[in-house]
Amino acid sequence: MATSNKGIMQTNDEAQIRNLLEDWRAAICARDLDRLIQHYAPDMFFFDAVPPYQHRGAAAYRRTWEVMFQQLPPRIGVEFHDVEISVGGDLAVMHCLTRIINEDTKEAATAGWVRVTVCHERQQGTWRVIHEHVSVPFDPATERAAFIHQP
Amino acid sequence: MATSNKGIMQTNDEAQIRNLLEDWRAAICARDLDRLIQHYAPDMFFFDAVPPYQHRGAAAYRRTWEVMFQQLPPRIGVEFHDVEISVGGDLAVMHCLTRIINEDTKEAATAGWVRVTVCHERQQGTWRVIHEHVSVPFDPATERAAFIHQP
Repeated sequence: MATSNKGIMQTNDEAQIRNLLEDWRAAICARDLDRLIQHYAPDMFFFDAVPPYQHRGAAAYRRTWEVMFQQLPPRIGVEFHDVEISVGGDLAVMHCLTRIINEDTKEAATAGWVRVTVCHERQQGTWRVIHEHVSVPFDPATERAAFIHQP
Repeated sequence: MATSNKGIMQTNDEAQIRNLLEDWRAAICARDLDRLIQHYAPDMFFFDAVPPYQHRGAAAYRRTWEVMFQQLPPRIGVEFHDVEISVGGDLAVMHCLTRIINEDTKEAATAGWVRVTVCHERQQGTWRVIHEHVSVPFDPATERAAFIHQP
C-alpha cells in the first residue's frame, strides 16, 4: 500500500474513532445503555476507577453504568480533554481526560476528571472496544485518591 | 494477505511483545534505565499510579523510575498476572497486573498489585511504547486507594 493511501486511511480511521467518542457521549447523556453497549465487544476487559479492580464482558461494563446513573443528577453532560488517538491497522488506542457535569449547573457531577484509555479493535469491519482503563492517581503519603479538579 | 499468514504474523508479533515484557522485567530488576527506556518512544504519554496525573515523554517516564528505585529494597523481582495481548497491524495493546517484590523475602515491595495497560506502536520496524497507564482503584466511600493484595 502506498504511504499516502495509508495516511489517508489512518485519518479516516481516526475520524471514525472520534465519531465513536461522540456517540459514547450522546449515549451517556441520554442514559441509553443499548446505544452505549453496541460499541463494546462481548468479551471486553475493563479496569474501572472504583472496585472491583477488574471486569470482564460488556454486560459487566453495562452494570457499572447502571450503578453510576443512580448517583448522577437528572441532566448530565460529558466533557473531554486532550483526546489523542493512534490507529495502526485493526487496532486503535485513545487516551484523554473526561468528566461528567450537571448539565443544569455546569458543575462537576463527580469528584473531578478521570484518566481514560480505550482500545478499539476492528471486528468484521466494525470498531468495538476490547479494553478500557479508567483511573485517578493516589497520593502515596496519604493513600487517598488524588482527584483531578483542573486539567 | 491470506488469513493463515495474518494469523502467523499476529502470533509472531505477540511473541515479540511478550519478549519486550520480559526485557522490561529484566531491566527493572537490574535497575538498568538505559535498557528500559530504549523501548519507549521519545514522545510517549504516561498515566502513572501516583501524581502528577500525567507525564509526557520517555525522559519523564525514566525519572519516575529513578524516584521509585530509591524507595525499593536492594534486590527486587517483578511479577505479572493475567497478561493479555492484542495485536492489529502496527499497534499492540497489553494489559495485566504487576507488582514488585523484595527478591530476598519474596514479599511485596510496594502496596500490592497495580493494573497496567501498555500500547506499543511499530516504528520503522521496531516496537516502541507510545502509551502506558498504571493505576489502582479507589473506594468512593472512603476516597482511599483500594490496594490489590490478592489478584
